[in-house]
Amino acid sequence: MQTWKDYQEKNKERFLEEMLELLRIPSISAKSEHKEDMLKCAEAVKKGLLAAGCDKAEVMPTEGYPVVYGEKIIDPSKPTVLVYGHYDVQPADPLELWHSGPFEPVIKDGKVFARGSADDKGQFFMHVKALEILTKTDSLTTNIKFLIEGEEEVGSPNLGKFVAANKSLLKADVILISDSSMLSMENPSLDTGVRGLSYIQVEVTGANRDLHSGTYGGAVANPITILAKMIASCHDENNHITIPGFYDDVVVATKEERDLLNKAPYDEQEYKDELGVKELWGEKGYSTYERTGIRPTLEVNGIWGGYTGEGAKTVLPSKAFAKISARLVPNQSSDKITEKLLAYFKSIAPASVDVKAELHHGGEPYMTPIDSKGYKAASKAVETTFGKAPIPVRGGGSIPICSILEKELGIKIIFMGFGLDNDNLHSPNEKYNLENYYKGIETIPYFHKFFAE
Amino acid sequence: MQTWKDYQEKNKERFLEEMLELLRIPSISAKSEHKEDMLKCAEAVKKGLLAAGCDKAEVMPTEGYPVVYGEKIIDPSKPTVLVYGHYDVQPADPLELWHSGPFEPVIKDGKVFARGSADDKGQFFMHVKALEILTKTDSLTTNIKFLIEGEEEVGSPNLGKFVAANKSLLKADVILISDSSMLSMENPSLDTGVRGLSYIQVEVTGANRDLHSGTYGGAVANPITILAKMIASCHDENNHITIPGFYDDVVVATKEERDLLNKAPYDEQEYKDELGVKELWGEKGYSTYERTGIRPTLEVNGIWGGYTGEGAKTVLPSKAFAKISARLVPNQSSDKITEKLLAYFKSIAPASVDVKAELHHGGEPYMTPIDSKGYKAASKAVETTFGKAPIPVRGGGSIPICSILEKELGIKIIFMGFGLDNDNLHSPNEKYNLENYYKGIETIPYFHKFFAE
Repeated sequence: MQTWKDYQEKNKERFLEEMLELLRIPSISAKSEHKEDMLKCAEAVKKGLLAAGCDKAEVMPTEGYPVVYGEKIIDPSKPTVLVYGHYDVQPADPLELWHSGPFEPVIKDGKVFARGSADDKGQFFMHVKALEILTKTDSLTTNIKFLIEGEEEVGSPNLGKFVAANKSLLKADVILISDSSMLSMENPSLDTGVRGLSYIQVEVTGANRDLHSGTYGGAVANPITILAKMIASCHDENNHITIPGFYDDVVVATKEERDLLNKAPYDEQEYKDELGVKELWGEKGYSTYERTGIRPTLEVNGIWGGYTGEGAKTVLPSKAFAKISARLVPNQSSDKITEKLLAYFKSIAPASVDVKAELHHGGEPYMTPIDSKGYKAASKAVETTFGKAPIPVRGGGSIPICSILEKELGIKIIFMGFGLDNDNLHSPNEKYNLENYYKGIETIPYFHKFFAE
Repeated sequence: MQTWKDYQEKNKERFLEEMLELLRIPSISAKSEHKEDMLKCAEAVKKGLLAAGCDKAEVMPTEGYPVVYGEKIIDPSKPTVLVYGHYDVQPADPLELWHSGPFEPVIKDGKVFARGSADDKGQFFMHVKALEILTKTDSLTTNIKFLIEGEEEVGSPNLGKFVAANKSLLKADVILISDSSMLSMENPSLDTGVRGLSYIQVEVTGANRDLHSGTYGGAVANPITILAKMIASCHDENNHITIPGFYDDVVVATKEERDLLNKAPYDEQEYKDELGVKELWGEKGYSTYERTGIRPTLEVNGIWGGYTGEGAKTVLPSKAFAKISARLVPNQSSDKITEKLLAYFKSIAPASVDVKAELHHGGEPYMTPIDSKGYKAASKAVETTFGKAPIPVRGGGSIPICSILEKELGIKIIFMGFGLDNDNLHSPNEKYNLENYYKGIETIPYFHKFFAE
């Protein structure tokens, strides 16, 4: 029998080429003009699952973009691992900052540059290739199911319904997700949770039309100025969030938890240098990893209004807009925070403007225990291939579907991400290191092995 | 001999059609892709001047877009009127808010809808048609010179040099400008001044690339949040401008001046209804006309940063931008205020971001006395055709070249605008009422008559 490593080594080039093929499809779920690409990508995922050894694979409809389901059942009495991933990607804007086409993957310095390389096509595809290794070497000891959705980047609006309607199909003993990062290749880590999300859009309207800033300047409210004042009011001088009740439900981390988190290797100068900033910024009284892990945050993701073209236009605009999102920590409720955010922006608006505030999407925070069978299997798998036990850390991002998956299926989620924080997720020049891709494919079979033991 | 009125009546349709022809040329000086249109428009203006009776007309080069000069000299010993106007227009964005193409003039309800209809093609062209009436009816009693520039909407960067180099060519006794508005057809008015301008652009940079708002949210400064805080800090709770030294040189208007200004007919409810706002907004302690006339203001003309497309993108952007301009009143210096603005935005930036602040353009405020020969001629002309003496008011807009024209040529400027405040200058659906266009053409010959007397 071939070893896993031998098989991977022999098929290395093809494993890469197949991932690149997926990356070439611009499956941007947020932009309706990419509908055809989305469907094409779902079909490609299905094909990949069948080729890797699934007994069956299907593109299953939802009210939005379809879910791709696949399974390899070796023995119903054996443990079943449900792999979750997503084939949709973030928009690629601003395009002008990419060094190569976001959907024309380029390999440079051992990295694949393309939208979706790390988030999440390159990562979920490691599981597809791990299945291939396990089947081709005849060493699969678990059943494997795949749930690859197409709406993660827009808040998974239809997946909850899909999961509720397909509980027996999705029945499993653990959910395995590779859609996050580790500290570094030298310091592997496993996420023990993800933050929740509450994403809103605010529209401020002043006069019923754009005005001449000379004729009307000083007479009527400028919606940009008002919106700026609203945004400025969201953080106090210590960068605490001022939205009334925002911290009400936050479970304050214990000293032990904070100590554990702060044990993770961290070099502030290196962190600043890598981001090109002279100083960091954030909530007073918390370390960097605390601020990105155990504390909720509020960020403006986009703002626009008035004249934004070349040169100067002396306009007093009618409207200004902002996209604003909060990251939530355990025990905060996305619905409750959304309500508070929407109410806040409406309540602080002066009578001289109208404010419309609407939910884009949200998701609950999620935590996973480190003493579960799944976590232990993941930890042992990483230790086997990295030669070092992974550090448990809190992930700053959000996977809104986590709490729903657990609620509907009654099983725990294990986060086994192989990306790096500097993969430029959601940014120009997203990349995934080849080393991480191959190391992930090498590690995953061990998870199945240890989980079945 | 035909009367002026008869001649106009007979040529009405053509007078309109010729104006529309000018409006069809998208002469946007701020956008470099319209270079050809700008040159085409200059040629069209020259042709119009010659057709109207000028002895000579020329497209004269500058370092930027050319100036169109034309003259009709009847007798060097007679008084000379220099008409100033501009053939360039503001950008037409946001295009989606126009009910018809900005450069496809449409006539509806007695109004011409097109970019440049009121600002300033439709207005300077009244002077061209007035010249035609005066020459064709053989009743011209002044010499007339035309100075029609192509860079007013970008701050006239090259006109000062042009005027300085052509002093004898431009020698005149008074400058006449129709590039502003009157209160209403029932309450005609004449502007006694325009505000100055200082227009800057601010760029705030946080991290060296767009980041994932989950991975980095809470750890590094968000340039949108910082920019919002900077903008919010520019006005205090009474909407006074907080930039240090901003009001230092403002000559506070006397009680008499304020009383005169507040005599202008004003119905607050009507003003609010027309703009579609529930409440006005502005500097505490000043009436609406004071706020738009005798007080300096600071407006954000545009803002952008992060993701502004459809849907949601959880990005923590690298950069945020704003276009910001101040309107200045007599004795404030555009250069000094620009310096203060640039210094302010740089000084309040926290160390966690970089701030670049740069001048777009500026211009000095300007005042004209109401006891001059020119003002009296304008007042009498308006009274003759409107049946009512015009009210002297302060214009809120800026014509940066005014102070330079007076300095270089040593003569006063008379503002005889026939637009209305609701002409949507610099906004979608700019319009010019046909009644105002024809009334202007009817009034201007009287100015020449009375000025020569």
